Amino acid sequence: MSGEDAPAQNQQQAEEKVQQEPKDQSAEESPSEPQQEPQPAATETADAPPAATDDKAPEEEVFTYRSLVLTGYGGYDKVKLQIKKGLPSPKSGEVMVRVKACGLNFAELLGRQGLYERLPSPPVTPGMECSGVIEAVGEEVTDRKVGDSVLVLGRCGLWQEVVVVQADHTFPMPEGMSYEEAAALPINYITAYMMLFELGNLRPNQSVLVHMAAGGVGIAATQLCHTVTDVTVFGTASASKHEVISQGGVNHPIDYRTRDYVEEIRKISPKGLDIILDPLGGSDTQKAFNLLKPMGTLIVYGAANRLTGQKKNLLALAKSWYNQFSINAVSLMHANKAICGFHLGYLDDEFPLIARVLNTLLELYTQGKIKPRIDSTYHFEQVGDAMRRMQERNNIGKVILFPEPKKEEPKAEEDQKESTKENKNEETKNAIQTEEEPKKEGEETKQEQS
Amino acid sequence: MSGEDAPAQNQQQAEEKVQQEPKDQSAEESPSEPQQEPQPAATETADAPPAATDDKAPEEEVFTYRSLVLTGYGGYDKVKLQIKKGLPSPKSGEVMVRVKACGLNFAELLGRQGLYERLPSPPVTPGMECSGVIEAVGEEVTDRKVGDSVLVLGRCGLWQEVVVVQADHTFPMPEGMSYEEAAALPINYITAYMMLFELGNLRPNQSVLVHMAAGGVGIAATQLCHTVTDVTVFGTASASKHEVISQGGVNHPIDYRTRDYVEEIRKISPKGLDIILDPLGGSDTQKAFNLLKPMGTLIVYGAANRLTGQKKNLLALAKSWYNQFSINAVSLMHANKAICGFHLGYLDDEFPLIARVLNTLLELYTQGKIKPRIDSTYHFEQVGDAMRRMQERNNIGKVILFPEPKKEEPKAEEDQKESTKENKNEETKNAIQTEEEPKKEGEETKQEQS
Repeated sequence: MSGEDAPAQNQQQAEEKVQQEPKDQSAEESPSEPQQEPQPAATETADAPPAATDDKAPEEEVFTYRSLVLTGYGGYDKVKLQIKKGLPSPKSGEVMVRVKACGLNFAELLGRQGLYERLPSPPVTPGMECSGVIEAVGEEVTDRKVGDSVLVLGRCGLWQEVVVVQADHTFPMPEGMSYEEAAALPINYITAYMMLFELGNLRPNQSVLVHMAAGGVGIAATQLCHTVTDVTVFGTASASKHEVISQGGVNHPIDYRTRDYVEEIRKISPKGLDIILDPLGGSDTQKAFNLLKPMGTLIVYGAANRLTGQKKNLLALAKSWYNQFSINAVSLMHANKAICGFHLGYLDDEFPLIARVLNTLLELYTQGKIKPRIDSTYHFEQVGDAMRRMQERNNIGKVILFPEPKKEEPKAEEDQKESTKENKNEETKNAIQTEEEPKKEGEETKQEQS
Repeated sequence: MSGEDAPAQNQQQAEEKVQQEPKDQSAEESPSEPQQEPQPAATETADAPPAATDDKAPEEEVFTYRSLVLTGYGGYDKVKLQIKKGLPSPKSGEVMVRVKACGLNFAELLGRQGLYERLPSPPVTPGMECSGVIEAVGEEVTDRKVGDSVLVLGRCGLWQEVVVVQADHTFPMPEGMSYEEAAALPINYITAYMMLFELGNLRPNQSVLVHMAAGGVGIAATQLCHTVTDVTVFGTASASKHEVISQGGVNHPIDYRTRDYVEEIRKISPKGLDIILDPLGGSDTQKAFNLLKPMGTLIVYGAANRLTGQKKNLLALAKSWYNQFSINAVSLMHANKAICGFHLGYLDDEFPLIARVLNTLLELYTQGKIKPRIDSTYHFEQVGDAMRRMQERNNIGKVILFPEPKKEEPKAEEDQKESTKENKNEETKNAIQTEEEPKKEGEETKQEQS
């Protein structure tokens, strides 16, 4: 919980969004400017250049936009919806993007607990991927223009209604791709692709173990495995998800909760496996290493075993650390095995490589070979529910965040919830609605449709 | 030096070959059958089926053949030339090969010191690769016939005039390949190929560090690197070898004896390298790991640093062990690097994979893309010189052993020594000649030419 006392910088806290934590809020900036008008600004400019903002709402002199801010380390409530002021404008080489959808990643769950070293200290806006429409273009940007739909990749800071980013961190969305898909693709698919093809050297007829096969990376990895001939995918997931992941390409779904996955795999593939993707860490890494065939490759890319509850679990951390896999060169030689580490967050300096991979992935999307599976969508004010869903591993596929406020109309809600049937209760429980929103949203809906 | 007291089993010690060590010999079997007639048997059947042996030398009832035997752990003198009795005959699925040339590998240098766990205890015949002509075929062998020129791959036991091996451990020699090349290719090129392509995933535009670039694996790796577009090879070797390895494809030869190779490489490639092949072990493995680019791959395949003198060096072993590289999963993740171990000797169970790789290599040879470089050739009785040459790292390319006795005629010698100019002094110093050989060889030469 360290860092909780950090001030909220220049950001306005949206009072009604944080009414569950009045004590946290008291230490932060005055909620003098409540969010009474963020939505108009947010939505009315969605399909128009930013200059349009000045024409509307003449009573509002300051442009505001919604932003999620990690205010300190801890539980789901530490990520708060705040209203930021001032229209950000792109400098040379930058573009401003009106964000339509954002991806939620494990890194943000870890970051909330203070376990993700690559996220700056709170207060900070998380978010490594989003999609949206370019609304302003800085000087010397020649290959992007206002109105372009793009997906955006960044180190953090993308969970906002508008973001200003380097133009070369945006990628044109292929035709037919939804904003949800565009926000779901970058981190999960780049991670899966780089592991399987840059490190793992996946080839025809090989076997791959995908842990957490129903997660974002798991689904991406499964799809990417099947871009290679006759690859067999073993996937761990709880039994309730097996049907979906089987349809998605997992040849051997294994219920890790009721079975010993090592035994189950040995029954099917006695010699072991060619590639194992390990997002778990701790003692599972040793199991994975033993489960490799000679000449097999283990790729460690996470420590999900460290994430056992809403808040940092020191016992789980200690256990994961104590059980951490370590190996020396001679043992590796005698085993004829490879072990790789992958952490996209530490590849900042390799952006050209990452961009090349992302372009390859967009091409695979266009060819119909990959397609992100959207598990559920939440609005910014529901970020706690979104994080809970992922952290409790209830998702099958990607959890998406919408910057725009949740609408109350039954019709609109139906649209948004088409893939979120399972989390209805959570939503009800966690939804923090503003009283004023419905009528404003009604107005905006009209404007949007005009 | 443990194991030195092991008896020499059923093998006859060739007395005059070991006259340098009378004390060792005293404990071994009686030299009642000196080598007066091994050469005739050896050479007269070289181009004929084994049945021919019975027609010649009617005074000799027992077929004998020359074999190198590791009699105990220690210096170069521990590998002795012995005469074995009895014509080996192939069982079902086997073939008998008249050996023309054998390859010398680092494993045998380590094995002589008791540092190669995959070599059975002495007395044992080393030798993992050879080439020759099939002289007899067992039942159920359909794809090999008498007279086929083949290269042979085995775990040990191939340093003999005749060997009986499983037919599927023999591979037809491509047209135009010499017996020396055929004996030089398997271990070095399989090792280099599997590291670069099965583990390392070498791709266009990458950079590779090849340590001991003038060694057998080094030269193989350099050639194989250049089967991929625009690969840059950094190679360490002493300055006197730079011209040759440059011609062989090393783009940046580095004299590791007078320069800090890490510094030299950083000057040329500040970000580091994509793939590093590490046959050294000890502290060089850590240096290599640091020298990798993000997403780079280190492949550890030896511990040459443990081999510092003719006999086992406990200090070098301890130092190498103490400095041994070890890493944990989290450090690997943060580095975004891969570390692999490779040891062909521990891949016995993966023979189908190895056979596939060897067939690929023979295809590359046929296409003119690879060609083993023969450093020097020695006869069995010169095995000590051969080992010394390799262990003292004087070789550039492969050191080859000929089962047939060294001939004394100036003309024949010239042929054999065309690539061994550098080791004339060694040969003179270490050659242990039998007094009776010259005249017998003279006779045999005639027979061979008929």
